[in-house]
Amino acid sequence: MTRQILIGMHLGNGYGNLPGAWRAPAVDPTSYTSFDAKVRHAQAAERGKLQFLFLPDGPTHVGDIANEPPNFNLDVMVTLAAIARETSHIGLVATGSTTFNEPFNLARQFKALDVLSHGRTGWNAVTSSGEDVAANYGQHIPSSPERYGRAHETVQLVQALWGSWGETAWVHDKATGRFADPEQVAPISLGGEYVASRGPLYIPPSEQGQPVVFHAGGSPNAHEFAGRWANAVIGAAFTIDDARAQRAAFREAAKRAGRNPDEIKFFAGLMTTITADKREGLDRRITLSGRTFPQRAAYLGRMLGLYLDPARLDEPLSAAQLSEARPSPGDPRSVHALKIARQGWTVRDILAHGVIDYHPVIVGPAAEAADHMQEWFEADAVDGFWVSPDIYDGGVDAFVDGVVPILQDRGLFHREYDGATLRDHLGAPAQYGVDPRITR
Amino acid sequence: MTRQILIGMHLGNGYGNLPGAWRAPAVDPTSYTSFDAKVRHAQAAERGKLQFLFLPDGPTHVGDIANEPPNFNLDVMVTLAAIARETSHIGLVATGSTTFNEPFNLARQFKALDVLSHGRTGWNAVTSSGEDVAANYGQHIPSSPERYGRAHETVQLVQALWGSWGETAWVHDKATGRFADPEQVAPISLGGEYVASRGPLYIPPSEQGQPVVFHAGGSPNAHEFAGRWANAVIGAAFTIDDARAQRAAFREAAKRAGRNPDEIKFFAGLMTTITADKREGLDRRITLSGRTFPQRAAYLGRMLGLYLDPARLDEPLSAAQLSEARPSPGDPRSVHALKIARQGWTVRDILAHGVIDYHPVIVGPAAEAADHMQEWFEADAVDGFWVSPDIYDGGVDAFVDGVVPILQDRGLFHREYDGATLRDHLGAPAQYGVDPRITR
Repeated sequence: MTRQILIGMHLGNGYGNLPGAWRAPAVDPTSYTSFDAKVRHAQAAERGKLQFLFLPDGPTHVGDIANEPPNFNLDVMVTLAAIARETSHIGLVATGSTTFNEPFNLARQFKALDVLSHGRTGWNAVTSSGEDVAANYGQHIPSSPERYGRAHETVQLVQALWGSWGETAWVHDKATGRFADPEQVAPISLGGEYVASRGPLYIPPSEQGQPVVFHAGGSPNAHEFAGRWANAVIGAAFTIDDARAQRAAFREAAKRAGRNPDEIKFFAGLMTTITADKREGLDRRITLSGRTFPQRAAYLGRMLGLYLDPARLDEPLSAAQLSEARPSPGDPRSVHALKIARQGWTVRDILAHGVIDYHPVIVGPAAEAADHMQEWFEADAVDGFWVSPDIYDGGVDAFVDGVVPILQDRGLFHREYDGATLRDHLGAPAQYGVDPRITR
Repeated sequence: MTRQILIGMHLGNGYGNLPGAWRAPAVDPTSYTSFDAKVRHAQAAERGKLQFLFLPDGPTHVGDIANEPPNFNLDVMVTLAAIARETSHIGLVATGSTTFNEPFNLARQFKALDVLSHGRTGWNAVTSSGEDVAANYGQHIPSSPERYGRAHETVQLVQALWGSWGETAWVHDKATGRFADPEQVAPISLGGEYVASRGPLYIPPSEQGQPVVFHAGGSPNAHEFAGRWANAVIGAAFTIDDARAQRAAFREAAKRAGRNPDEIKFFAGLMTTITADKREGLDRRITLSGRTFPQRAAYLGRMLGLYLDPARLDEPLSAAQLSEARPSPGDPRSVHALKIARQGWTVRDILAHGVIDYHPVIVGPAAEAADHMQEWFEADAVDGFWVSPDIYDGGVDAFVDGVVPILQDRGLFHREYDGATLRDHLGAPAQYGVDPRITR
């Protein structure tokens, strides 16, 4: 079978990736607390046959609460449990920190969700690195070796707990009165330098055995962790070359761990404003994030080695500015920003293109997003994308009804779910308990 | 308004309180992992206008896994999140240990569930005392003063976090662009000997403000903890006198903490086998728990100061045995057991009455359960009951369709939910943040 693009949908605070998404006419301003809204967005993504939903987590808030919502869901597990009952195929992936959670609690909640969702759950196992997060637990962030040391131990304990009720342990045979096979329900009794657990965890396998492990990050520590334990990486890259290099680094790490590199999928971020024409998209972005543009103009200027006057957003860069501009070698976004500037857009419109956002931004017709995805995919830069719409109400539909059919017509995206579990969707191999190919 | 009985329904492993409940003809043997089953049982309880569901938690398993299911839900929060979307009024109460959870994680999940359920959540804040639970966290159980010290700190941090996004902080006014009032979103920066958190927790109030605190336990530590922090106590009592004394102790503790004692409700446990006649109920219990009767006969004998031959379960106690019997003063069940024995039942039938179960057991017509509840309630021994049916599939309905209408006809139980939140159902006072009447 030809390799096809895999797509996840970012579900954050319920509004979208624009700071003012909550003010968009189509958006319910109470989506932050509305589980109706979360379910609606999840169902829209499932209608598009997307492989998974991805719920990042801090847990903290970074931003300007007077004008912008918090970044994350109220609680990722509670949200996904609600969504699980009202969807049937789409994968459900949430971040769970290995730094500030007990392995037993992580193992239990993710496996319960995996059973509830009939095998659609993924755990984005990450270390926490923000002091604002640590402070919520009355702690400081441990050193990087400590954080990754604990992460490696935690994932092994969690996977061992997931396998501690054996694959065929659960008999539930009314006729014989045999509830479970006690030979297959065993403590794990594992302990390391940072965490320990006896177990067993009393949860039988889900339809996919156990949740799929994801990771996010770009450091050598992240490569090694994901190479050993993950089937998917939530990545961030601004250029094809960067994405290709990151993907290759994760694949090499998987090989070093004795795995088939095809078992680890690399997902680049993509932010979308899908509209009939680009002008409409730029105007929406100006309306919903223009408040931040004066500061962003200064930032854009620094990226290009120029001074940009925040009071003159309605002018394009002058010929003199364009010839003076020097893209910052430390910021991969700056080459793209200069390219947009050279097209003659005003500073306001350059910013509305999202040139200094966290991921590449597509503003305009669906075909532009499809082109971007095709180009990156065919350059072997990614296995897929995690897509973050500008606004969820309407924006998920715009992607699903606009971009997805184009990719399907080009043979780049599946038309139906072939299987029912997240492992099926990702082509992740069957696994139960700790991956036996990994030497501990 | 006349005081009426309050009723909660115990939701455990999905089967019921009999060890062999999973084998009953009406019961789905996969209920342990079936969220359809949990939702079905919750909806049945809601049809009966019960005030709340109560989900205890270990988390561990105690029992004979070859023949009996684990005691608890796969995960109480995941289960309640699923139930919340498919019920509208019934309260959702789960146990969360203060010993092995971070206050920030407890605060976040319970408040997210409270928002999801539109103000129907309760947190049964308990200390963990089992070494088998501690082992799942690679730890040992701390001393009692340490456990209750951490519990007192934890509940204060949790309630402070619940109030850290102010009651009117969330403006979400599209017209003005004001998302929240930053003056009302403040760190709590509380720390004690055991736990600390900076906060804030970024979750606005639910329809009831914040979750209701429950407690379970019977020690002086439990009285003091519940007296200060709880609006409800999940109790266990075998006699009216015992229940009355326990209720009084909690009420006195509330007074010592400067509270109105009516703000703390005491719930006694009640196990039910509701059948058209007693014989049918006894036979069901023999079928579904008779496997345990040989050992239980020996235990019953010790309670009565007798030797009971496990091979002679089909005989009643002889006249000589009845006159020799001495109820154990240390076991409040023994007087009741002897009363049943004197009625001439066989040993098997005495055991089928549930005389050595964890709570009083009603076996027989619905009116017997109603009589028991009325008698205890009118003796001021309880504010209500938490009911544990022998089997959930059918047993919840038997209670709801049999016992509830009798109590309603006697004016002892409400016919409709008067309000929409758990605080409404319990008559618990409004609260947001740490209870201001409590001196810290």
